Amino acid sequence: MSKEEHSAIGKTGLVDLLQASSTVMTSSLHEIDGKLSTVEALASTAICGIIHSILGGQPLLIVGVAEPTVIMYTYLYKFAKGREDLGEHLYLAWAAWVCIWTACMLFLLAIFNASAVITRFTRVAGELFGMLITVLFVQEAIKGMVNEFNIPEGEDGALPRYQFQWLYINGLLGIIFAIGLLYTALKSRRARGWRYGTGWFRSFIADYGVPLMVLVWTALSFAVPSKVPSGVPRRLFSPLPWESNSLHHWTVAKDMLSVPAVYIFAAIIPAFMVAGLYFFDHSVASQMAQQKEFNLKNPSAYHYDIFVLGFMVLICGLLGIPPSNGVLPQSPMHTKSLAVLKKQLIRKKMVQSAKESIKRRASNLEIYGKMQDVFIEMDDGHTTISAARELQDLKDAVMRNEPGEGELKDRFDPERHIDAHLPVRVNEQRLSNLLQSILVGACLGAMPIIKKIPTSVLWGYFAYMAIDSLPGNQFWERILLLFITPGRRYKVLEGVHASFVESVPFRQIAIFTLLQLAYLLLCFGVTWIPIAGILFPLPFFLLIIIRQHILPKFFHPLHLWELDAAEYEEIAGVPHRHLSLSFTECETSQPGSDDGNDEVCDAEILDELTTSRGEFKLRCSFREDRNIQVHPESSLQGE
Amino acid sequence: MSKEEHSAIGKTGLVDLLQASSTVMTSSLHEIDGKLSTVEALASTAICGIIHSILGGQPLLIVGVAEPTVIMYTYLYKFAKGREDLGEHLYLAWAAWVCIWTACMLFLLAIFNASAVITRFTRVAGELFGMLITVLFVQEAIKGMVNEFNIPEGEDGALPRYQFQWLYINGLLGIIFAIGLLYTALKSRRARGWRYGTGWFRSFIADYGVPLMVLVWTALSFAVPSKVPSGVPRRLFSPLPWESNSLHHWTVAKDMLSVPAVYIFAAIIPAFMVAGLYFFDHSVASQMAQQKEFNLKNPSAYHYDIFVLGFMVLICGLLGIPPSNGVLPQSPMHTKSLAVLKKQLIRKKMVQSAKESIKRRASNLEIYGKMQDVFIEMDDGHTTISAARELQDLKDAVMRNEPGEGELKDRFDPERHIDAHLPVRVNEQRLSNLLQSILVGACLGAMPIIKKIPTSVLWGYFAYMAIDSLPGNQFWERILLLFITPGRRYKVLEGVHASFVESVPFRQIAIFTLLQLAYLLLCFGVTWIPIAGILFPLPFFLLIIIRQHILPKFFHPLHLWELDAAEYEEIAGVPHRHLSLSFTECETSQPGSDDGNDEVCDAEILDELTTSRGEFKLRCSFREDRNIQVHPESSLQGE
Repeated sequence: MSKEEHSAIGKTGLVDLLQASSTVMTSSLHEIDGKLSTVEALASTAICGIIHSILGGQPLLIVGVAEPTVIMYTYLYKFAKGREDLGEHLYLAWAAWVCIWTACMLFLLAIFNASAVITRFTRVAGELFGMLITVLFVQEAIKGMVNEFNIPEGEDGALPRYQFQWLYINGLLGIIFAIGLLYTALKSRRARGWRYGTGWFRSFIADYGVPLMVLVWTALSFAVPSKVPSGVPRRLFSPLPWESNSLHHWTVAKDMLSVPAVYIFAAIIPAFMVAGLYFFDHSVASQMAQQKEFNLKNPSAYHYDIFVLGFMVLICGLLGIPPSNGVLPQSPMHTKSLAVLKKQLIRKKMVQSAKESIKRRASNLEIYGKMQDVFIEMDDGHTTISAARELQDLKDAVMRNEPGEGELKDRFDPERHIDAHLPVRVNEQRLSNLLQSILVGACLGAMPIIKKIPTSVLWGYFAYMAIDSLPGNQFWERILLLFITPGRRYKVLEGVHASFVESVPFRQIAIFTLLQLAYLLLCFGVTWIPIAGILFPLPFFLLIIIRQHILPKFFHPLHLWELDAAEYEEIAGVPHRHLSLSFTECETSQPGSDDGNDEVCDAEILDELTTSRGEFKLRCSFREDRNIQVHPESSLQGE
Repeated sequence: MSKEEHSAIGKTGLVDLLQASSTVMTSSLHEIDGKLSTVEALASTAICGIIHSILGGQPLLIVGVAEPTVIMYTYLYKFAKGREDLGEHLYLAWAAWVCIWTACMLFLLAIFNASAVITRFTRVAGELFGMLITVLFVQEAIKGMVNEFNIPEGEDGALPRYQFQWLYINGLLGIIFAIGLLYTALKSRRARGWRYGTGWFRSFIADYGVPLMVLVWTALSFAVPSKVPSGVPRRLFSPLPWESNSLHHWTVAKDMLSVPAVYIFAAIIPAFMVAGLYFFDHSVASQMAQQKEFNLKNPSAYHYDIFVLGFMVLICGLLGIPPSNGVLPQSPMHTKSLAVLKKQLIRKKMVQSAKESIKRRASNLEIYGKMQDVFIEMDDGHTTISAARELQDLKDAVMRNEPGEGELKDRFDPERHIDAHLPVRVNEQRLSNLLQSILVGACLGAMPIIKKIPTSVLWGYFAYMAIDSLPGNQFWERILLLFITPGRRYKVLEGVHASFVESVPFRQIAIFTLLQLAYLLLCFGVTWIPIAGILFPLPFFLLIIIRQHILPKFFHPLHLWELDAAEYEEIAGVPHRHLSLSFTECETSQPGSDDGNDEVCDAEILDELTTSRGEFKLRCSFREDRNIQVHPESSLQGE
């Protein structure tokens, strides 16, 4: 197995594990009365993962029990509990019916090639959905923290650990653990860019820092003096997989016929929501795992994957466990872990050849030809045609500068262009997905250890998940932009920023963002409605229609295109006061920058090129039309 | 009173107050058994401040009770307590004798013009001293935090608040308050650069954020539920100024003759240390308050100020309170608060005139002449001669580019040069110092409020003081440099960095830093010796001799000069991969950068120009000799 596969298994496996443990813990603790716990989530993740890795059309896609699934199951539980003829004991049987209907709908969607609609899933809906999940995570984290100070529902308040002083100590320890985890996890994510420590150490911290911090804070929680009664700090509550509480799930299918007929048909309504949700989530995760920039060799298989998803939902339903679907950010993270840049070596040679050609005042075509030769020579197994296809972007970049501009050297910068356009290679196989699924399954045996994690560490982890998902979400960045005083907006232009900041007038950005914010509040409001909350995915389906038919009436098509681009360009910042500085002369004074001695590993370059959602940013700091298109006067001060 | 004076009084007054409250609290709580407390420190700060602001030679200098004074007084106390014929009750009388001897020595130093020696106080001694104070602060913070979990010495362990659970709650609350204060204080210091909020709000947070955070966390400490017994969390312990405990100090002079003769003469030894320490500290603080770049109109008065200091020490000794001396960083902070840049307006006009001249291909002298005219016109009360003197730096920068280089426009960049060389104007007067001293004195009446601050907030404040003093301390920056792996050192060059990084070989930097580190450990070790610890300033006096006579034998004079420069140049970072990027074309696309609409206030520019010690950095990113002098190959990879 290659080094990349190892790392891919480790990274995605651990994230999946945490995700599975955490998402279900959320509500199960307080609301589902233990009907679903970490055990079921892990089982579902493992079973579906194994099925998908063997049968799935796109084995790079990672499946897991996602937050919306848990929310859905919580609504189902609340509904079932309230009906006399359904009740708690038929809850999972009824949920199985929902899964059956969902599976049928997914089959239909697959048969009718509905995935063609994926092009309509624009950034606006995806980011809104992501933001709602973030808000829900924050809500859970806060609720959880507040509850650390209270006696849990249904517990005996007379127990010594529920006396005031121990409750208070539990709460204070909770604050320390939660904030400690949040802070250290956020710091460790950025370890790859640290100045200190060797490359190996930094990569290790960046890849495994978050699970490592969960371990560290769990270990610290055992440093509490022995005079504190057991149960302080509180730890995860979950039945062990071999206890009877967990075992009754597996036989849920035999109760299915006890569900009254009216509820069997009523299950169509939630099934409709779940099917839409899964269709949306699964397709987007799949799309992110196979972005154009990864240069995957194997084609996509959206329709077939939806079919497989239907099959998995069916199995999970019959086993009485929540179904899994394609998850973000694990899916693109998995592909990223498997990517090999081979950049350092190839890049150096290509830059060298390009520079030589420029010196000889060669034409653009010659320059490109030389670079392609180097590429074929270095990266074996290439024919001229396949190389030409992969280097298309680079070729475009080189050739673009030909007409008009006399001085080529001023416009074409080999180092920058090659960095931006050199293709990524992904090690495509099914093994890493399969092994990480088995790993997650094996963790069921490790449940007694997982139960040692303090609940407060989990709240910190929720907050981390929420905060970590924000950078790269343009909706969030636009919200922040609204709070910047006009005189300070140049600071945004100074940093790396998305292209809409320059090309769309501020007024338009503000209106668009406020509309989106209002819509987010609406969606969040829906989740609070007791039973109709089950309809919470509806606004997202609606949004796709609104985006297509209503928004174009209010916004200029170009602006809308920039604000709602599926891909986006990132523009390097222009220093504010140093616009007329020319660095060209310094080049000779910095020979150290060229000599390959510098430690810049592939993973670091990839980190820089992608958002935390795993999305590729197009680096177009060198847009030749920048001078023409950009009117900061009108876009930023033009109110 | 001008706006600047207001702000100067507020800022320095508050910092002084916190400093005085905190430094003395350190040891007094545990070690001086309440003989000295915040009351005495505040009284000394106020009395000496009033004297100095009226009689002092340099009224911009701020005096206060500094950490070394407290350490010294602690040693004196420990010594006195151990002698039977001296004992606790004669401690302050004996300390008065130390002050008398110290005053005599300071008079002698002043008479013999010893301040001429100030040129020998190089960076190496000053930074080592600063670092020792930092280490001592961290030590106090950690000691304090650990003690929050224990029963304080000499207290009745049977009290309810010293039961295990309440002690533990006290400790946990302590961690939360201390870390909370540390984090928020560090964040608020950088508020001026925030993107959010109006300029007024950001300035307010940056200037008063730290005292504000002390207030906020003190307020939060009252949110502890009422079931927690009083005394949890622990709060500052200090007698009120009008209680008998504080009053006996004032009559200490009448006990002086009861001190046995042998101790009167033995007092010469600590007096020698205190005199050296004060001479050193006072001169350096004074130097920092009147750096060349502040363009003060009134001349310096080192000798006279040492004389005044002797006078103040005498008075404090006779009153039984610890003496004050010139303090860092309050002194340069005071000058900085009084500085007016008037830059925005003048700068704009000057840039405009320079650009026009360049367009007309005028000679350098003409360009400068035009700019000088603008300067005189804008900043009234100037004759040509005084303006010429103030603009000397700018003139040098303009003229320097004449010979050799053909293309002036490439070399002289009006915006950058004018920014770097436009002089600062300081509003010099005695009023702000006087009023802030009176303010500190008035706080004696507010002691009942100051006593509400939890001790843990103080430990956080200590940690803040320690951490905040690090950036800008080149000793610290060199220690960090040692931990950067060779392949990562380019990251230092990318950021703004001191010139030694480029001009001194890494090997030399490493050896010099390790020597300094060993010396620091030695100095720190001395403070731990029970009675001989009183000699802790001795290594610093020694260091000045070592620096002069021994170091030059091991280091190249040029390297030594760079590593130990009293002033230092800061070099703007050169982006690593973008060396050949030329921004010139973008100039027209960014009209927004020039139109004065941007919110960049004077204080923000000043913050950028100075270190947190208040030291001016020379911004020489445009050194024309950079290409020649800089050999990163040899300096960073040349091991």
